[in-house]
Formats: sequence, C-alpha cells, structure tokens
Amino acid sequence: MTLLVVGSVALDSVDTPFGQTADALGGSAVHFAVAASLLHPVRVVGVVGADYPVGELERLAPRGIDWSGVERVEGESFRWRGKYSYDLQSRETLETRLGVFANFHPRLPPGAEAARYLFLGNIDPELQLSVLEQVTAPALVACDTMNYWIQSKREALLALLRKVDLLMVNDAEARELSGDWNIHRAGRWILNQGPKRVVIKQGEYGALLIEPGRTFAVPAWPLEEVFDPTGAGDAFAGGFMGFLARSSATDTDAMRRAMIYGAAMGSYSVSGFDIRGFEGVTVAEVEARVRHFIDLTQIPAAERIA
Amino acid sequence: MTLLVVGSVALDSVDTPFGQTADALGGSAVHFAVAASLLHPVRVVGVVGADYPVGELERLAPRGIDWSGVERVEGESFRWRGKYSYDLQSRETLETRLGVFANFHPRLPPGAEAARYLFLGNIDPELQLSVLEQVTAPALVACDTMNYWIQSKREALLALLRKVDLLMVNDAEARELSGDWNIHRAGRWILNQGPKRVVIKQGEYGALLIEPGRTFAVPAWPLEEVFDPTGAGDAFAGGFMGFLARSSATDTDAMRRAMIYGAAMGSYSVSGFDIRGFEGVTVAEVEARVRHFIDLTQIPAAERIA
Repeated sequence: MTLLVVGSVALDSVDTPFGQTADALGGSAVHFAVAASLLHPVRVVGVVGADYPVGELERLAPRGIDWSGVERVEGESFRWRGKYSYDLQSRETLETRLGVFANFHPRLPPGAEAARYLFLGNIDPELQLSVLEQVTAPALVACDTMNYWIQSKREALLALLRKVDLLMVNDAEARELSGDWNIHRAGRWILNQGPKRVVIKQGEYGALLIEPGRTFAVPAWPLEEVFDPTGAGDAFAGGFMGFLARSSATDTDAMRRAMIYGAAMGSYSVSGFDIRGFEGVTVAEVEARVRHFIDLTQIPAAERIA
Repeated sequence: MTLLVVGSVALDSVDTPFGQTADALGGSAVHFAVAASLLHPVRVVGVVGADYPVGELERLAPRGIDWSGVERVEGESFRWRGKYSYDLQSRETLETRLGVFANFHPRLPPGAEAARYLFLGNIDPELQLSVLEQVTAPALVACDTMNYWIQSKREALLALLRKVDLLMVNDAEARELSGDWNIHRAGRWILNQGPKRVVIKQGEYGALLIEPGRTFAVPAWPLEEVFDPTGAGDAFAGGFMGFLARSSATDTDAMRRAMIYGAAMGSYSVSGFDIRGFEGVTVAEVEARVRHFIDLTQIPAAERIA
C-alpha cells in the first residue's frame, strides 16, 4: 500500500546542553520518512532550495525513501533554529526562515495520487487540504499541526479536520486547539470536529490514542540518555503510519499496535542529533524493541488480576 | 497479613478552581487508609490534637480501618493549607502548622509490631526509622518522603533508604533526591541507595515501577474531571500496599498488579475533595476499574504484534 508524506524538508540548527548542530537534515517529512522506511517504502512530497544537500537525501534512498516528489527550486531552503532548556523539556525557536517554502504549492508526482496512506505533516493547513484533494482514494489520512497554524489559520485547520481520519498532535497543541487544559476533554473536543481518532503525544510520558469512548495509552521507552527531541513527533508518526501501511490495516487493533511502533521510533529519534538516532537501526532491532514494550506495559496474568 | 501505616492525620484546607475546603479530613495516613481499606484491613499510627473531629474518623472504622493507634493529645492537630493552579498542575503551600505533630514519637499499639506490610507515610525520616525499628518481621516496607525532608533531613532519609524495600515518590521528589532530571537515571540512583524497587508517581501521566534493569509503566485513568489532587499519591500507595497485603505477595508480578490498584485508587482520590472521591466506591467498582485498565494499556494480540 503506497505511503505518502507531505511536509517540510528543512535544515535545522539546534542547541542543546549536549551539543549543537548547524544546517543538519531536518523537517517533518524527513524525520517521518526515515522512521517509516524501516517498516514500509515511503514517498515524500516537499520542496528544497538550490542550497539543499540533496546528496544526503539520496544517500537515504536505498532505505526505501522515494524523494522524487521533492521539488528543487531557486532560492533558500527552509531553515529552523532552536535552543532547548537544560532538561530538554522546553525549547525556544530562535529563527524560522521559510525560504522556498513560502511559495510552495505541493504537486503530487505521477502515481502518488493513488496513495492509500497519507500523512499531512505540519505545514500550512491550506496546503494540507490541497494535497488531500489530489489523492483519489486514501484508506487513511492523518495530519499534524502546530501552535503557529492553530493561531493564524484556525478556519482552514478546522476545515481540514472535517476531512481527515486522524489528528496527531502533542499535548500543548491539543490544549491550545481545544481551549481545554484537560487532555481527555481536549481529545473529545477534537473528535467532535471530524477525525475518528486523535493521537496525543506527551513527550517523555508517551502517547494516547483517543477514540469515542475508548482510550489507549503507551508509555515512552525508558531512556537514560536523550540528546535531541527535534523530530521525535514526526518519527512517531512515521512508525505509526509505516506500520499501518505495512499491515494494510486501519482498524483499532492495528492502530494500537501502530502506537507501539510510533513510540519505538520516537525513542530512536531522540537518541541522536537530527536523524542520527536511526544510524544502524535495523528492522530486527525495531521489532525487538516493540516486543520489549510488552514487558514494559503488560499486566502479568491479567485474567487473575483480581 | 497485617497492614500498618504511619503518617499524618491532618486537617486540610485547599483552594482549587472548582471549590474550597476548610479543615477537612486529610493527611497521608488518612488518604492511604481510606484507599487501602477497600482491599484489606489497615491499622493506622499517628497523632491528633484535642480539636480533631475523631467522630469522622470513627465513621470510617466499619470499612476496616483500625484507628486505635492514633494518639489523642492536648494541643492543635496538624494543619495544611494550599492553593492549586488553574490546571491543578502545581500548588502552593500557604500554611503548615505542625501542632501536636511537632512532638510526635510514634509508638506502635499492641500487636502492630508484628505487621507484615508497613507503609511509612511522608513524615520526618527519623520518625519513619523509629517505627521501622519497632516492627519485628516485616515482609515489605515501603516509604514516602517529600522535598522538605530531602532538603532538611537528607542523612536520615538516606539511612532510611538503606533499610526499606521500596521508595514511593513523585517525579519532582525523585529528581530532587537524586539530583538528576532524567527520571530513569534518578530511579537507578535511588536503587543504588538501598531499595530493591522504586515507584515514581507522575500525576496525570501515571506511574513507573523501576527495578534493576526492568521498568513497568501504568498510565493514569483517563479522567475528564479532576477536582482535588490532594492525597492522590497516598491513595495510590494505599491501593498498592492494600493489594499486596491482600495477596500476601512481594514478587514483581504482584507489584505490577499492585500498580494498577494504585492507579485506580488515585483516580478515585482526585475525583472529589478530601476523601469524598471514595464515597460510594465499592470493592466491585474497584475491580471493574482495574479490569478496565487492561483495555487502556494492553496491546491487542501481542504475540503477533510484528
């Protein structure tokens, strides 16, 4: 089943207590694709400027990432620069330069319109809508967003929510979008806008899959070392969607299993700067970590718990 | 198996966005006992002043709470007054009046020295140690503490940790005690001080049971309404210890099941002011909620997750 992601292909510069990067591979579509490709081939739609180190992207192609939908145009690539707090719990955006992203009008490459699994990464909701309209028969459409769009493009975002199957956001975004600090009420509010499911990522605490009347919770992998949280949410989405595309499934049981793959991918992502947390990670390693989540979360002898 | 708790029997006044209480039943031993008694009889050791509404405690006796170890002395009862933030995520202590607690020297009532399950609630670690020394053959000793003792009685607290089986604290306390912001490293640091296990409570995110090389995570019950977080950690401890005492068990499997009982009791505790979240809660209701945690956390068809 074709898996398609549209999102930013960026150059990130981060400053953490454990080190810095400058103009490193980043962007929602890149983090998503690196994670998803461990489970299923993935096509990327995006745009880069003439300054982008395209060779570094091409080096990742053998993993099963098809970059042919990434346009190369004159101008500067999208750049983001941020600084994390000492405990990595918060971050400050120091600079955002949209560059070629300012005039981006995503066009799907030939064949991509038949994609069955579509992830609309965190970009302008109007662009997310235009991509959605180009896809003819998706089995599952999920989208992300962020505080910037919640504040500046609320109507377009709400129009998008009426058309997607699943919203995947972090807890602060869910609270801001709904105007409710209680995360479970916020989730229900989002469900009332259209999506059948909402995934709320909670950083070091894990993530929730909320459906009408039913919730599933997965903890984060217990990590003693975290280096760079940038892209962890997109890696989570990549694991989640990659597993569903591989399984050709969109039912609740599959979604719950997909949450574990998402959590596993998030744990690799934060273990290194930019996309280096995935260096040397194999499918077998991912499957082993996923199985290990069972020991982390399962109640022994559940049938005789009482 | 006798279950014994030593801790504060207090009068709490809280101010939340949803209401206020004044001189309501509170204190670590009270919250613990109300929760634990749903699972197993519990004896309480503590002290109150002449002003304490002892009748209100006695009304709880039919639940299986033995208050005979609570001394009644001249003077004022322990009082705590606090105010919560709009989202209940943080609180400020407005006043602490130790009253008769200032000169409390816990003495076990006849028979209590044979207790098998002992919870040393959040009081001066020197008093916790003195209680521990009076118990002859405990099967499991768990203790709580707080920032005040971490800062002012660190040596006594470390001496206590060398003698207990399990420390149960919240994430901020684990970080402050260990000096490490990473909760998993903090947990390992605590294990190195003596306890074989540490439970780290994370409020709305659930709790972790950390053992050498092994971790278990339980989420919090998904609540759309939270009224008063006061005592939730003690209720968690009551559910945890009450289940173990009922099971006469101290192995890892039992501890993991006990975590679910703890989480269930925490969810009742926050659903009402002071101890009113437990009003009308039956053993059958607790068991139903515990079983429901399976749907909240279990990965479907785990054996074929890959």
